[in-house]
Amino acid sequence: MRFAPHSLSILKTFICQRPTTVAQTRGLSGAAMRLVQFRRHGDGGGIRVGVEQGEGLGVVDLKAFDPSMPSTVRELLELGDKGRACAQRALASGQCVVNREHVQLLSPILAPEKVVCVGMNYRDHCAEQNAPIPKEPIIFSKFPSAITGPYDDIILPSESKEVDWEVELAFVIGRRGKEIKEEDALSYVAGFTVANDVSARDWQMNRNGKQWLLGKTFDSFCPLGPALVTSDAVKDPHKLGIRCLVNGDVVQNSCTDQMIFKTAELVSWVSKFVTLTPGDVFLTGTPPGVGVFRKPPVFLKKGDVVECQIDQLGSIINRVI
Amino acid sequence: MRFAPHSLSILKTFICQRPTTVAQTRGLSGAAMRLVQFRRHGDGGGIRVGVEQGEGLGVVDLKAFDPSMPSTVRELLELGDKGRACAQRALASGQCVVNREHVQLLSPILAPEKVVCVGMNYRDHCAEQNAPIPKEPIIFSKFPSAITGPYDDIILPSESKEVDWEVELAFVIGRRGKEIKEEDALSYVAGFTVANDVSARDWQMNRNGKQWLLGKTFDSFCPLGPALVTSDAVKDPHKLGIRCLVNGDVVQNSCTDQMIFKTAELVSWVSKFVTLTPGDVFLTGTPPGVGVFRKPPVFLKKGDVVECQIDQLGSIINRVI
Repeated sequence: MRFAPHSLSILKTFICQRPTTVAQTRGLSGAAMRLVQFRRHGDGGGIRVGVEQGEGLGVVDLKAFDPSMPSTVRELLELGDKGRACAQRALASGQCVVNREHVQLLSPILAPEKVVCVGMNYRDHCAEQNAPIPKEPIIFSKFPSAITGPYDDIILPSESKEVDWEVELAFVIGRRGKEIKEEDALSYVAGFTVANDVSARDWQMNRNGKQWLLGKTFDSFCPLGPALVTSDAVKDPHKLGIRCLVNGDVVQNSCTDQMIFKTAELVSWVSKFVTLTPGDVFLTGTPPGVGVFRKPPVFLKKGDVVECQIDQLGSIINRVI
Repeated sequence: MRFAPHSLSILKTFICQRPTTVAQTRGLSGAAMRLVQFRRHGDGGGIRVGVEQGEGLGVVDLKAFDPSMPSTVRELLELGDKGRACAQRALASGQCVVNREHVQLLSPILAPEKVVCVGMNYRDHCAEQNAPIPKEPIIFSKFPSAITGPYDDIILPSESKEVDWEVELAFVIGRRGKEIKEEDALSYVAGFTVANDVSARDWQMNRNGKQWLLGKTFDSFCPLGPALVTSDAVKDPHKLGIRCLVNGDVVQNSCTDQMIFKTAELVSWVSKFVTLTPGDVFLTGTPPGVGVFRKPPVFLKKGDVVECQIDQLGSIINRVI
């Protein structure tokens, strides 16, 4: 069962707390866009690329506007300027708009080549666990199969008793590159979105030879969305309020200025090791307030609703089942 | 520059050591196949699926035989029995054969959703480092961007001074599954191939918060091939001689019967965490003889040639540049 945000009264309180208005996200630049992937409700059809008319508003169906356009955001990014320009024309046209109630939003990226994750990347999160500030980024990964939609369920696996939340700023690579200089790095970033780096602490911390992968990569452990907000729409990605709410209670509340290694440094660092490719997703680490470091520790249970919010980007809301 | 095995005299010694004959691999079953991916030399064309007429022999061009067939082995596996039956007809036809000298072999799988790796999975490798036998599989990963062809170069990164070899039995998932029972697991395996789990020991062991990922996933750190040998062509994947040679010297020489967690256990274990999908590659761990545990340690340097051999599957030969 997937979570239908418009049908649940619990969300009313969340909606009031959203700090972003449509005007804010759209007003910055003519090129600013909120790219989404969606299905039309009930038509059993495939994935489609859309451009939101504003957060939570109608979605322009890109392929309906131009049938030569691809069906996934990853392929759209691979087209470079051509794809981006077409999406802008589609948005400006005001045509081919699907009403929100007919839209099922998916993750804005599916099947990336990489989900690159950064550990221990908030000063205040290091402080909460009495850990030193890392001198270099700590990089781990999830498998792409962990990605799920912005309102989809988080599936509690029977293998873990310690499933925890982690709101994170995510960004998506827009063009191919290797050994990217820090001063060029932002030109490789297509945009930003919100992620929940769901983590089974028992597996992450105490099993699997202390390799974090398994605890981080259960199916559904990477809710992502609601939209890929293009870089030119985000004034400063390192001055964004970032929050996590569990059943309406604020459990994480920080600012992306607490990030130790910021977007450009991370792109440059990881590209020393691997070729980056359009669609690659980076999760940039979480602020304090995770369940495992609470006294006593708190973990997710069936029926919980987790909302991750980042200013200017939006919210993802996932029920735990 | 890619390595052209037929043009280098150093290979003559290697070829003598190959234990597999064409008759051995083809004689087991009518369904037995060696699936490859290739380009035609010099035509600048794309990836094509082929079926080897025998190890090192002519390659049947599947799409030339049936234009409705896909261009990648991953897509072929996604077709299930239909794709497999067509490949068998193509092989039996004796038509559409590309002579070996016109073939550039690629990795038999490119762009899988997952490269799942297993650490510490040979009894004799645990003994060499005085480590206890793990009670559960230790799972880590490489990004798919690390995959390179069976005769392509291993690129020595300037970031590491301790690049090491690891010959490994690899297998490839043939159909989608989650929570697979051990007794059903082998039916999810499409076939076997040879991998080199190239590893930067400085990064794996001493940096990146002891997360192995970065040290394992530099571009070109996963040579794979030469063919995906279908499961029915391999009599017992856990009784295969497995060897690594560096510049002609045997540095690893063991048998896959030393594996602690075998193919079926690994499929079942990993599918508790994630949905497996056609094309997913598993690297099942390495036997003793790696460079880092030699006294004194030995690491790869420019100009070295590494050959990884497994009985019935073949050899991959990669020059270090």
